[in-house]
Amino acid sequence: MKRIILTYTLAFSLLSAYAGEGGSPPLKNTDKSLLIDYVDPFIGTTNFGTTNPGAICPNGMMSVVPFNVMGSSENTYDKDARWWSTPYEYTNCFFTGYAHVNLSGVGCPELGSLLLMPTTGELNVDYKEYGSKYKDEQASPGYYSNYLTKYNVKTEVSATPRSGIARFTFPKGKSHILLNLGEGLTNESGAMLRRVSDSEVEGVKLLGTFCYNPQAVFPIYFVLRVKKNPSATGYWKKQRPMMGVEAEWDKDQGKYKLYTRYGKEIAGDDIGTYFSFDTEEGEQVEVQMGVSFVSIENARLNLDREQAGKDFEKIHAEARSKWNDDLSRITVEGGTDAQKTVFYTALYHLLIHPNILQDVNGEYPAMESDKILTTKGDRYTVFSLWDTYRNVHQLLTLVYPERQMEMVRTMLDMYREHGWLPKWELYGRETLTMEGDPSIPVIVDTWMKGLRDFDVDLAYEAMYKSATLPGAENLMRPDNDDYMSKGYVPLREQYDNSVSHALEYYIADFALSRFAAALGKKKDAEMFYKRSLGYKHYYSKEFGTFRPILPDGTFYSPFNPRQGENFEPNPGFHEGSSWNYTFYVPHDVYGLAKLMGGKKPFIDKLQMVFDEGLYDPANEPDIAYAHLFSYFKGEEWRTQKETQRLLDKYFTTKPDGIPGNDDTGTMSSWAIFNMIGFYPDCPGLPEYTLTTPVFNKVTIRLDPKWYKENELVIETNRTQPGTLYIDKVLLDGKKFNKYHITHDELVHGKYLKFDLK
Amino acid sequence: MKRIILTYTLAFSLLSAYAGEGGSPPLKNTDKSLLIDYVDPFIGTTNFGTTNPGAICPNGMMSVVPFNVMGSSENTYDKDARWWSTPYEYTNCFFTGYAHVNLSGVGCPELGSLLLMPTTGELNVDYKEYGSKYKDEQASPGYYSNYLTKYNVKTEVSATPRSGIARFTFPKGKSHILLNLGEGLTNESGAMLRRVSDSEVEGVKLLGTFCYNPQAVFPIYFVLRVKKNPSATGYWKKQRPMMGVEAEWDKDQGKYKLYTRYGKEIAGDDIGTYFSFDTEEGEQVEVQMGVSFVSIENARLNLDREQAGKDFEKIHAEARSKWNDDLSRITVEGGTDAQKTVFYTALYHLLIHPNILQDVNGEYPAMESDKILTTKGDRYTVFSLWDTYRNVHQLLTLVYPERQMEMVRTMLDMYREHGWLPKWELYGRETLTMEGDPSIPVIVDTWMKGLRDFDVDLAYEAMYKSATLPGAENLMRPDNDDYMSKGYVPLREQYDNSVSHALEYYIADFALSRFAAALGKKKDAEMFYKRSLGYKHYYSKEFGTFRPILPDGTFYSPFNPRQGENFEPNPGFHEGSSWNYTFYVPHDVYGLAKLMGGKKPFIDKLQMVFDEGLYDPANEPDIAYAHLFSYFKGEEWRTQKETQRLLDKYFTTKPDGIPGNDDTGTMSSWAIFNMIGFYPDCPGLPEYTLTTPVFNKVTIRLDPKWYKENELVIETNRTQPGTLYIDKVLLDGKKFNKYHITHDELVHGKYLKFDLK
Repeated sequence: MKRIILTYTLAFSLLSAYAGEGGSPPLKNTDKSLLIDYVDPFIGTTNFGTTNPGAICPNGMMSVVPFNVMGSSENTYDKDARWWSTPYEYTNCFFTGYAHVNLSGVGCPELGSLLLMPTTGELNVDYKEYGSKYKDEQASPGYYSNYLTKYNVKTEVSATPRSGIARFTFPKGKSHILLNLGEGLTNESGAMLRRVSDSEVEGVKLLGTFCYNPQAVFPIYFVLRVKKNPSATGYWKKQRPMMGVEAEWDKDQGKYKLYTRYGKEIAGDDIGTYFSFDTEEGEQVEVQMGVSFVSIENARLNLDREQAGKDFEKIHAEARSKWNDDLSRITVEGGTDAQKTVFYTALYHLLIHPNILQDVNGEYPAMESDKILTTKGDRYTVFSLWDTYRNVHQLLTLVYPERQMEMVRTMLDMYREHGWLPKWELYGRETLTMEGDPSIPVIVDTWMKGLRDFDVDLAYEAMYKSATLPGAENLMRPDNDDYMSKGYVPLREQYDNSVSHALEYYIADFALSRFAAALGKKKDAEMFYKRSLGYKHYYSKEFGTFRPILPDGTFYSPFNPRQGENFEPNPGFHEGSSWNYTFYVPHDVYGLAKLMGGKKPFIDKLQMVFDEGLYDPANEPDIAYAHLFSYFKGEEWRTQKETQRLLDKYFTTKPDGIPGNDDTGTMSSWAIFNMIGFYPDCPGLPEYTLTTPVFNKVTIRLDPKWYKENELVIETNRTQPGTLYIDKVLLDGKKFNKYHITHDELVHGKYLKFDLK
Repeated sequence: MKRIILTYTLAFSLLSAYAGEGGSPPLKNTDKSLLIDYVDPFIGTTNFGTTNPGAICPNGMMSVVPFNVMGSSENTYDKDARWWSTPYEYTNCFFTGYAHVNLSGVGCPELGSLLLMPTTGELNVDYKEYGSKYKDEQASPGYYSNYLTKYNVKTEVSATPRSGIARFTFPKGKSHILLNLGEGLTNESGAMLRRVSDSEVEGVKLLGTFCYNPQAVFPIYFVLRVKKNPSATGYWKKQRPMMGVEAEWDKDQGKYKLYTRYGKEIAGDDIGTYFSFDTEEGEQVEVQMGVSFVSIENARLNLDREQAGKDFEKIHAEARSKWNDDLSRITVEGGTDAQKTVFYTALYHLLIHPNILQDVNGEYPAMESDKILTTKGDRYTVFSLWDTYRNVHQLLTLVYPERQMEMVRTMLDMYREHGWLPKWELYGRETLTMEGDPSIPVIVDTWMKGLRDFDVDLAYEAMYKSATLPGAENLMRPDNDDYMSKGYVPLREQYDNSVSHALEYYIADFALSRFAAALGKKKDAEMFYKRSLGYKHYYSKEFGTFRPILPDGTFYSPFNPRQGENFEPNPGFHEGSSWNYTFYVPHDVYGLAKLMGGKKPFIDKLQMVFDEGLYDPANEPDIAYAHLFSYFKGEEWRTQKETQRLLDKYFTTKPDGIPGNDDTGTMSSWAIFNMIGFYPDCPGLPEYTLTTPVFNKVTIRLDPKWYKENELVIETNRTQPGTLYIDKVLLDGKKFNKYHITHDELVHGKYLKFDLK
C-alpha cells in the first residue's frame, strides 16, 4: 500500500516557510498536523480516474509526474497498446522518467512529455532499456518520491507554479540524467534542443492533436538546468530506418545514435540529451525545469523568477504552504479520517485545472493565434467545459471566487481573440472535444451569483452569437440550422450524437434565457426559454426515454434505450445510453415529469435507473440524477440516500477511489458538494439541492469582497456515524422549509443547520 | 543534348552590371562573347563525376542545384537505392526541387538539402508525388533553368556567395512553393522551422555523417522569403507510424500531416512548409534563400546584405560577372572550341571548393567547437585534402594566390582552434575521410612558392605535432607508433589500408623535411627525409610492386597486385590495386627506379600500367604517373603522349567528360595543368614537369603582389592540330634544357615557349 507521508524535515521546512513569508501558521484543527496531510494524491490513479500523484502547485502550469505507462510488458496498461490518457497508472511498475506539464483527469492523451530520468552505470538512451522498477512511492501536495530499484537512486520532485525541480540521490559511480523529448503521452512529435552551457539546455517540443483533433497543436518551450557540472554531455536521436545498401553503410540507422561532440541545435522526432556525472555515495543532484507556452526566453524567466536562490527543500515547503492555504478555505469536523481524505483529496483535484497559462511577465499565447499577448491578471487554460460547467465552476464561484472571476475574464478574452467562447480549450487551442455550448451556463451561473466584474455586454454578445449563428459558420453549434428551425437536432449520421448535442443546447439556452431576462432582453429571453423546452421532441412514450429523431421527423429504429453502456457506440447519444441522458433536463424537471405521466412514474423510473445499474457515476449527463428526487415533496430522502450510497461506493481512499475520469475535477466536485450538503444540479441557475452532509461541521471561508460574509458554516446534529436522513433544516437558526436553497440564501445565511434523523 | 546559353537579355544585364560596378568590361578575345560562355556546367554530371549544373558564385557558400536523385523508379540512379553522392545526375529525369548548399565532385553523400519546389493544382507534399519531369535544361555559371512538364512551370535559379534566388514562372491558377526539410542528400535528419511572417520562414537543419562519420554533424541555418503574398501557408510533418489500436485513432499516422493553422516552431525528422498562391498566366514569383552556418540571424543578414534591392536579373548578372572575372585570369588561344570548353569548365570546377564559410559579418563556426569566431579575411571550408594537396592548391597558388594564402591561414586557424591541421574538413568538422597528413605538403608547397604571409613557426609546430605524436593521441596518423618505429605501417586489419597510409606519410614527411631544412632545422630535416624513404620496405621483388607487410615483418600473402580494381576491397590499399600505388613515390623517383632495377625496368613497367589498363585516371595516387617518364632522359615523349591521350579520352565536353569524382576540382586541375603544359607531380616540391600544351597560347595573369610579374605566357609553335611532341623548350627566349621547371623559373621567366615536332 502506498502511503502519503510527512517527515519531520518537511514539517520543519514548512514551518520555516511560513515563518519566512509571514503567512498563516499551520492549521492544527485536526488529528493530522496539516490539512494537506489528508490529501492522498494516489486516489484516482487507477480505475481510469486519470489523476496522478505528481508534484504541482494549486492551479499551476507545471506538474512533475512519474511517467510509468510505456516500455515494459510488465505494465498493466501501456500507452502504445490501448487507448490511454494519463502519464501515471497506479498498478504499473516501469518508470521511465518524470513528465513535465500534464493533464489531470482527462480522457484523451496529451502533454506528459519532457521526460527526465536518472540512471547509473553505462549510458543507455533507449527508454525500453533505461526504465526502472521502483518502490517506496510517496506523494503529498507538491511532492512525489520513489526509489529506482535498478539504479539505487532515490528520486524526489516538487514544483513552483511554472517550474519543476527534481532531486536525485545517486550511489557512488557513473550517473546520468536524461531528458527524453521523443516519447511522452502526446501523440504529436518533434522537438528541438539547444545546449546553452554544460549544465543547461533549452528547446521546444510540439504538443497536441488532443482527442485526435489534428490541428489542435501548440508548442511547449523549456529550459533545463542541472545543478552539478557534468563530466560529459551529449544528445541522442533515433535515426530513420534505411533500406537495402544504404542500411549497410550507416551503422546507426534505425537506432538511437549518440551525438557526443555536437552542441548546437538538434531537432527531430525522437531526440534527447544526457548529462553524465561521477557521483559520490548519496550525492544529491538537483535538476530544474522551467517551461513556457510563449518562448524559450520566458521559460528561463519563469525558472529564474520562481527558483532563484531556492533549493529543493525551500521549493517543496513553499508548494506545501500554497496548498495548505488553499485547502484551508474549507475546514471540516467530524466524519472519519477516510472521509476527510476523500474530501481534501477532492478539493486538491479541484484546484489543478483550469491552470494558469501566463508567464511571470504576464505573456501568454493568444487563443487560436500565433500572437503573444500580455495579461494583468491570471490567464487560465485547460477548460474541459462540457464537464466542468456542471459543478466545478459552481464550487470555484463559492469557495475561490477570485479565480472563477479570472476564469470568466479569460473566457471573454478568448472570445476577443478568437471570436468564440471556449468549448474544450487547451493551451490556446479550441479542441472542439465533446458537444454543446458550455461557456454559457458557466458565465451565467457566475453572474447570477454576483460575480459580475467582467464585460457583461460582450459576454451576452458572445453567447448570442453561438446561439443564433447558422451552423455552417458556428464553431460551437455546427448543427444549429436544424436546432433553430426544428427545435431539435435530427440524427444525420449514425454516430453524430445528435440527442446529446441538443440536450446541451437546451440547458445552455435556458441559462441564456435567464441571463437575457436579467439584462432586460425580454424577447431574447422568451425565444431562448422556448428553445430550451425543445427536449420534449425526443421523448418517446413507447420507451419512456429520449430517442433519436430522423431527419424526416420519425424516431430512429430499431431503438434500445440500454445501448451505449461501457462506451459502446450508440446512435444519437455520446458515450452513454439513453438512460444516462433522459433525465438531463434540470431546467424543466417538472415538465419532464409531466411528459412521463407525473410524479410517480418519474420517481419510479428514476429509482429504477439506480436500482437496475443504468446510472453511470462517471458520465456527466446523469451525475445530478440523484438530486432530482428532491424536486418532489416526500421523495427527498431518496436524494439523501443515493448521494450517500454513491459517495460510499465510488469515492474512497483507495487508488481506484474515483469512479472514472475525474474530468478535471468534475467527479471531485461532485463529491465535495455532496459531502457538505448541497449540489448545484441546474447549471446556470443559482440554486442548490440540499442533501445530507457527511461531516458534523463544515466551515467555508467566504471572500467578503464578493459575499460580504466571512464564512459559511454548515452543521449537523449527527451523534452516530450512520445517521443519514434530514429531519429538518435551519438557516441562520430559522426553519428552512425547502430542499432547494438559492445561492444568496446560502451565502448570506451564514449558518445552515441540518437536523438529522 | 543539353545546351549552355546566353540570351540577349542576360548579356545586356551583364554589361549593365559591369557598368554599375566599375568592373572590367566583358572580354572579347574569343569567338564566344565571354569566357563563361565556354563553361558547360553539365560536364561531369554523369559517369560519377558528381559535379552539378547548379547556380553558384566562385568559392561561394551557396549553390542552388536541381535535385533529381530521388522519388522515381524512372531515375537511372536513386540516392536511396545505392551509394550516391551528388544531388544531380544528368541521366535522371525526376526533379523534386532545388537543393541549397551542395558539394561538388565528392564521393560521399552530404548537404543537398533545403529543397525548394514549385507546384500547381492541388497541394501535395509527398515528394514521390509532387516531383516532376522536366525539359529545356539550361546552365551557365551562376544560372540554371528547366521547365517542369507536370506543372508547366519554368524554373530559374541564381546565387550570391551566401544566398540563392529562384524565379518560378507559373501558369494561371493555384500554385504552391514547397520547402522540404525532410529529404536531401545528407544522411542526417531533423530540422526546425519557424514562421516569421506570411512570406518568410526561418529554421535550422542538421547535416553531416559525411562518409558515415557519425560525429561529423553540423547545423545549417536559413531564412526563406517568397516575394509574393501567399493566399495560404502551412507546415507538414510526416507522422510517426503507430501500431494496433493507436493507429486506428490517428488518421494521419505514417502519413504527411498538414498543419494549416499552426505557425510557431515545428520540428521533426521530416517536415516542410508550403506557400500557396493564386497566380496569373506567366506570373513570376521570386524566392530568396539566405543561409549561414552560424545562426538564423546571420542567415537573414547574409540574405539582406547580398540581395537587398536586387531582383533575379541583377543577381544573375552579378554572378556572371564574378565568374567571368575569375576565369579571365587565364586566357587561351588556339585549340578547339571543345578544348576551351573543357578548359574553362575545369577552371570553373576548380573555383567551387574550398568555399567561404564566414558570414557577411565575418562570423564562422570554429573548428570542432560550438564557438562562433570572427575572421577578417576569408574563412574557407570543404578541404578534401587527400585529393587537393596533389594539384588543386598548386593551381590556386599560381593563379589565385590571394585565395590560396587565405586557405593556408584558414588551415592554421583550424589548428589554433582544434589542435590539428585539417585532413578532410567539412563545415567545421574533421571528417577524417581518407588517410595521410595532407596539410603538410599543401602548406610547404605554398611556402616554397613564396606565399609566406602566415605564422610559419605555428605551421611548423602543427606539422611536427602530427608527424611525431604517438598514434593513440594522433588524429592525423593513428598508426604513427608503427610508422615511427618500423618505418612502415604493417597490416593489422584486413582492410586497414596500411600501405596507403604509409605512402601518404612518406610524401608528407618528405615535404616536411624540405620545410625543416629551409627553416634551418637540420636534424628534423634529416629525420623526416629518412622517414620518407621508408617506402622501400613495401617493395616486393617477387611482384615488382608494393605489397602489404604483416606485423611480423613478412609480406602479406596471398598477394595479387591487380586486386582492388573497381572499388573491390584490397588488403593494404585504399580504393585501388597495388599498381595504383606502386609508383606513388614522387619525391624519390630515382630511388624507386633503382629498386626496380633501373631506368629500363621502371619505364617498361610504368608503360605497362598504361598499356594494360592498370592506370586509374580517377584515383589520385596514380594520376601523376604519366609525368614520371620525364624523370628519365629520352622518355619525356611518353609523358607528352600519355597526358594528351588521357586528356582526349577522359576529359570531354560531354556530361561524362570527367573520369570519375572530380574530387573538389582535383580531376579538373589535372586537366588544366596538362592543357597548359606543366604539372606539379611532387606535392611540396615547387617544381613542375613539362608536357605539351594543347593551346597555342596561354596567358596567365599573375598577381604582382606575389610574383612581381603581371603575366606568364606559354606559347607553342603548333600549326597543325595534331602536333604532339616537344622538340625544345625556350624560357624567356633562352633554350631550357630540362623537362622540370621550378616555380621560380616559371613565374619569373614570363614567357615559356614550346617548339613542337
